[in-house]
Amino acid sequence: MKLGDGVEQAIHSVTMLSCLQPGSTLSAAVKHLQAMSGAGLLEAVPGPKGGYRLARAPEKITLLDIVLAVEGPEPAFRCNEIRLRGPNPYSCKPAAPCTINVAMLRAEQAYRAELRRVTIAAIMADLKAIDRDGAIAARTNGFLALHERKSGNAA
Amino acid sequence: MKLGDGVEQAIHSVTMLSCLQPGSTLSAAVKHLQAMSGAGLLEAVPGPKGGYRLARAPEKITLLDIVLAVEGPEPAFRCNEIRLRGPNPYSCKPAAPCTINVAMLRAEQAYRAELRRVTIAAIMADLKAIDRDGAIAARTNGFLALHERKSGNAA
Repeated sequence: MKLGDGVEQAIHSVTMLSCLQPGSTLSAAVKHLQAMSGAGLLEAVPGPKGGYRLARAPEKITLLDIVLAVEGPEPAFRCNEIRLRGPNPYSCKPAAPCTINVAMLRAEQAYRAELRRVTIAAIMADLKAIDRDGAIAARTNGFLALHERKSGNAA
Repeated sequence: MKLGDGVEQAIHSVTMLSCLQPGSTLSAAVKHLQAMSGAGLLEAVPGPKGGYRLARAPEKITLLDIVLAVEGPEPAFRCNEIRLRGPNPYSCKPAAPCTINVAMLRAEQAYRAELRRVTIAAIMADLKAIDRDGAIAARTNGFLALHERKSGNAA
């Protein structure tokens, strides 16, 4: 089982976007930002001063939102109905779902419930807790000072 | 996120093997049986009458055992330390683990805990519960009557 590398890039991108001033954007070439924009997590602002910003508050974006936006909605286990195809196939589809599929989907639900519990705001709070000397925040601020695109309204 | 199709074949294979008489084997071309044999879940019996059988009781084989045997031990989320490589890299590896990685691994633990809870014996019990008219058991018995390889001792 493997999540695409895009998930890691996407989550890091959203945490950085959560540090922007209201109305500002960041330009980025990360390809998964478009998928997150399509999923309603980010807003793409057009134009030469445009870029991406969060479409909703960091408290309202969960790790599950990001994983599903980047990886798609299908569960990790996808039942191919081996019961109908294997060496000993059923002649017609049984009314009851495959017990193996049921058990695998139950585990997927546990996984998703845990990801749904964690918001970007919580990730940032965890980050703040380990940033005892403020070095991480200073680094982020330095990066944003160079790259943040202030909105016309805020200028 | 996607599990390989081999996981589905592997779990179905183990459930069928759990229906064998003691000492009997099934011959099978499913490539993942070898991986499960390497992981100590199955026993490969050599020779012209050989094949595979469970290496331990169905109560002692969990869905997690099978998933890890087929897919390998790595978690679905594999941290590439974007903190050290991204557009705003740390100059050296921070002492604290990445908070994103910590959260993603916590979800993986929930997934694995759920898979660890489900044994092949439990899957078979669920199957028996939905097999009200005994049609599934009859089909399995018919298949095994044709394919089960009785051990020399049992013959």
